Amino acid sequence: MSLLTVGTVAFDTIETPFGKAEMVVGGSCSYISLAASYFLQDINLVAVVGDDFPQSELEAFKNRGINLDGLQIKQGEKSFFWAGRYHDNMNKRDTLVTDLNVLANFDPILPESYRTSDFIMLGNLTPDVQMQVLQQLDKTPKLVALDTMNFWMNVAWGSLIKVLKMVDILIINDEEARQLSGEHSLRRAATKIMEMGPQYLIIKKGEHGAMLWSSDSMFYVPALPLEEVFDPTGAGDTFAGGFMGYLASVGKVDFEEMKRALIYGSALASFCVEKFSTENLKNLDMTQIRERVQQFTDMVKVSM
Amino acid sequence: MSLLTVGTVAFDTIETPFGKAEMVVGGSCSYISLAASYFLQDINLVAVVGDDFPQSELEAFKNRGINLDGLQIKQGEKSFFWAGRYHDNMNKRDTLVTDLNVLANFDPILPESYRTSDFIMLGNLTPDVQMQVLQQLDKTPKLVALDTMNFWMNVAWGSLIKVLKMVDILIINDEEARQLSGEHSLRRAATKIMEMGPQYLIIKKGEHGAMLWSSDSMFYVPALPLEEVFDPTGAGDTFAGGFMGYLASVGKVDFEEMKRALIYGSALASFCVEKFSTENLKNLDMTQIRERVQQFTDMVKVSM
Repeated sequence: MSLLTVGTVAFDTIETPFGKAEMVVGGSCSYISLAASYFLQDINLVAVVGDDFPQSELEAFKNRGINLDGLQIKQGEKSFFWAGRYHDNMNKRDTLVTDLNVLANFDPILPESYRTSDFIMLGNLTPDVQMQVLQQLDKTPKLVALDTMNFWMNVAWGSLIKVLKMVDILIINDEEARQLSGEHSLRRAATKIMEMGPQYLIIKKGEHGAMLWSSDSMFYVPALPLEEVFDPTGAGDTFAGGFMGYLASVGKVDFEEMKRALIYGSALASFCVEKFSTENLKNLDMTQIRERVQQFTDMVKVSM
Repeated sequence: MSLLTVGTVAFDTIETPFGKAEMVVGGSCSYISLAASYFLQDINLVAVVGDDFPQSELEAFKNRGINLDGLQIKQGEKSFFWAGRYHDNMNKRDTLVTDLNVLANFDPILPESYRTSDFIMLGNLTPDVQMQVLQQLDKTPKLVALDTMNFWMNVAWGSLIKVLKMVDILIINDEEARQLSGEHSLRRAATKIMEMGPQYLIIKKGEHGAMLWSSDSMFYVPALPLEEVFDPTGAGDTFAGGFMGYLASVGKVDFEEMKRALIYGSALASFCVEKFSTENLKNLDMTQIRERVQQFTDMVKVSM
């Protein structure tokens, strides 16, 4: 099955207590697509960059089987740029620079071949742009997933509410789930959010794991405690990419498959944070991924 | 097997966004002993109260099979009193009053019949008092567990380090594990702490669950997402009591049994927070507890 991935392909400059990485590859769509590429080849990327984005990095995407027909390259313009600095405990970060550049006027255009994609992963962007993508589809996809953030809740509430009615699964973090629902209890938040449109909800809890909700079920994957979190940037997008990549590879959407997908997504995210940027997502192999998945399942296994 | 429970029996005044409970039963040993009482009858409580502590509340302990021979009642003195107020999200609380009263000069004396207890749960107290209890034992127990807090790391580091060498399992929260070890990564913290003495470590993560560590294994129980957390007071002690009560009831100490104990402890704690004070710990039955345990295991069950 095919997976459409929409979001940003960008440059990041990241400072952590372990060091600094300047002008490295970042952006939601980069992480999503690379993570998904371990599960399937038919990945249709939609994003925009400037002519400053290195050809070698584009080749790296292509080498992982990612289709770049939907990547717009704007001549004479600059790619989206974000700079951030993580605090000592890695749980908080300060944004130092956000240069929208090409992203300011992003008009996503789906190539003909993309319009019948089976699975859709809408990375964090303005809700209007996410909606524009859905409006270009020629057939109803098997699953539409959407990521968003508190910023859009503050400045584009109406559009966000609209696009939520068009998606099957929302992927957000605990803070965002609380803001979106106005409920502190995640159980109550989940109920309210699923009344807003999505049939499923994933709540990401960073170092504490992730939860999957449907109207009558809940599944919880704790995060694997790591020796060191080196750079948390992109962990949430990597998780989403692994989740959707796995689901698209099995081609089936039910709660049991989603549970497995949650673990694959978590495993990919755990690799992501072990190195700067997308570095650790370029050369994994399925043996490593399966070993990591095994650690996730062993960690909670018990016979009562 | 018998379980020795040591800690405070006290009065609490608790304010939460849901209401206020004044002069209700609190104290680590109350929660520990009540939680353990669902698993075994042979519970030997060691604590001190003033003559203001109501006879009816002592009867409630006795009715749950808790042996009060080791409870000192100081005539003309007042029981330990704590008052606190929880913030809106229940994750933070302010201490409003701490009146040590009888606790200021607590000299724990173990009745003869207590000195051969098989399992020992040392609730949060000064490390010196915890040590005094261990020095009165006549035989080596099967398992000694200890709870402590950051306060003792600040004011009684030397004694704490000493008593840590005398226990098998340390039960603390994530913040305390980080302070004790000087490591942010819980995996590294666990390694360092187990080098300080205890063979096992439990790290409580509140609404995110709890982890059990040994030198070569790790087990993670996420907390059950509840509709509402009504009063978190005593959840950690209830967890510890359920954990040790279950283990004492099976009489065996190995990692697999400890995993089960972790789930029983978590289940008891989830009941504790649904009502004020010890209210919800007085009238549970094993059917309810087993149903709750089932919810904990179902929530993470997956076949890969």
